[in-house]
Amino acid sequence: METQGETQDVGAGSIGDWASRSADPGYRAAVVDLLGALAYGELSAFERLAEDAKFAPGLADKAALARMASAEFQHFQLLHDRLAAVGADPDEAMTPFVEPLEGFHRLTAPSDWLEGLVKAYVGDAIATDFYREVAVRLDDDTRDLVLGVMADTGHAQFAVDKVRQAIEENPRVGGRLALWGRRLMGEALSQAQRVVAERDALSNLLVGGAQVQGFDLVEVGKMFNRITEAHTKRMAALGLAS
Amino acid sequence: METQGETQDVGAGSIGDWASRSADPGYRAAVVDLLGALAYGELSAFERLAEDAKFAPGLADKAALARMASAEFQHFQLLHDRLAAVGADPDEAMTPFVEPLEGFHRLTAPSDWLEGLVKAYVGDAIATDFYREVAVRLDDDTRDLVLGVMADTGHAQFAVDKVRQAIEENPRVGGRLALWGRRLMGEALSQAQRVVAERDALSNLLVGGAQVQGFDLVEVGKMFNRITEAHTKRMAALGLAS
Repeated sequence: METQGETQDVGAGSIGDWASRSADPGYRAAVVDLLGALAYGELSAFERLAEDAKFAPGLADKAALARMASAEFQHFQLLHDRLAAVGADPDEAMTPFVEPLEGFHRLTAPSDWLEGLVKAYVGDAIATDFYREVAVRLDDDTRDLVLGVMADTGHAQFAVDKVRQAIEENPRVGGRLALWGRRLMGEALSQAQRVVAERDALSNLLVGGAQVQGFDLVEVGKMFNRITEAHTKRMAALGLAS
Repeated sequence: METQGETQDVGAGSIGDWASRSADPGYRAAVVDLLGALAYGELSAFERLAEDAKFAPGLADKAALARMASAEFQHFQLLHDRLAAVGADPDEAMTPFVEPLEGFHRLTAPSDWLEGLVKAYVGDAIATDFYREVAVRLDDDTRDLVLGVMADTGHAQFAVDKVRQAIEENPRVGGRLALWGRRLMGEALSQAQRVVAERDALSNLLVGGAQVQGFDLVEVGKMFNRITEAHTKRMAALGLAS
């Protein structure tokens, strides 16, 4: 999915390939953390989309959500296989992220079809923005994987069309969904802050540490701000004030 | 998945290709019915497997069920695209089968992980048996599609291993799951009988009609018997008396 132009340029130089970088145990642990978080995020997105499909008003809509869920599962598989290929235990790598992600989903269970669509759209977009941001911190091999997983979605237009149509038919729906969008972003940031606070290796990757180019805690805050700004623009594009 | 040797030989002669057979409106309607039933069956299987994944005792198990669900979705997509390619409305073709399949799922909602696994295994096996049986009634193009969709599963071993292991650890589990397997088969037959009674074109295809090689209502009964026998053998292989 396309994001607005606020996120960092992905092609900004190489820090080496996996073979050279993974000799550093701190870097290795950070990448295993990152892949574990992304993998569980995809598996969890699969589950939620599949569950939300039951709200679908018709068979074509149900199939569209099932298609998105299935695409998320393919992403999960790629990330899972990569973890296994670098000698990590995929389950172990995912485990620390189960609780933050389940917490997010528990606090943002959609109550109807439109809330489910907005959540699928916003969740996918936030994930894409985060992938792009973190990609510049990664070795070439891990970066290719992360950008490949990200590039494959493209289901957002479905959600955009359905939500716009619903707002046109009943403008009051817009107010409710705008509130919902703010809540989704708030809960996502809250869980992300929790992960940054708890996962040292991953946080060191995000804030730079000794080995990676400069990027401090202020920069992490700026990254969250860029993602929030991109979210605001997307919500406006959806016809929702955020 | 492999079925025991009771089902009919699939290579038993050709009745022509789709271009020649579809000129007959009765045959065409029957195939659209069949593809609609199979397509909704796959979409519905996707939903149920994805929902049952929440019972998984661990991440690897959850991923395995999500993988099966995703494979069912790929099958749905093939059947859906074929319906569109022959000029049928996929939603319309699926609609008559929503209620029988939802009825089946409503009456057989698994109450735990093992019941979900047995259901996935049994449901997949019954579907495969039915695909094989009906394949011999079909034109070459439709038959290739149906056998292609069928050939791709292969996740049954996962369920078999897990269920056997659970019975070894606690033999009393076997009694409960044997009852469950009988209930699954009973409900499946009951819904299948309902579909045969309600869908004329499809039933005509199954019982032969004027245009297709002989196959009467007694033969439909025999087909159900063959599928039931294969089910019985599979349950025994699983360590369950049926």
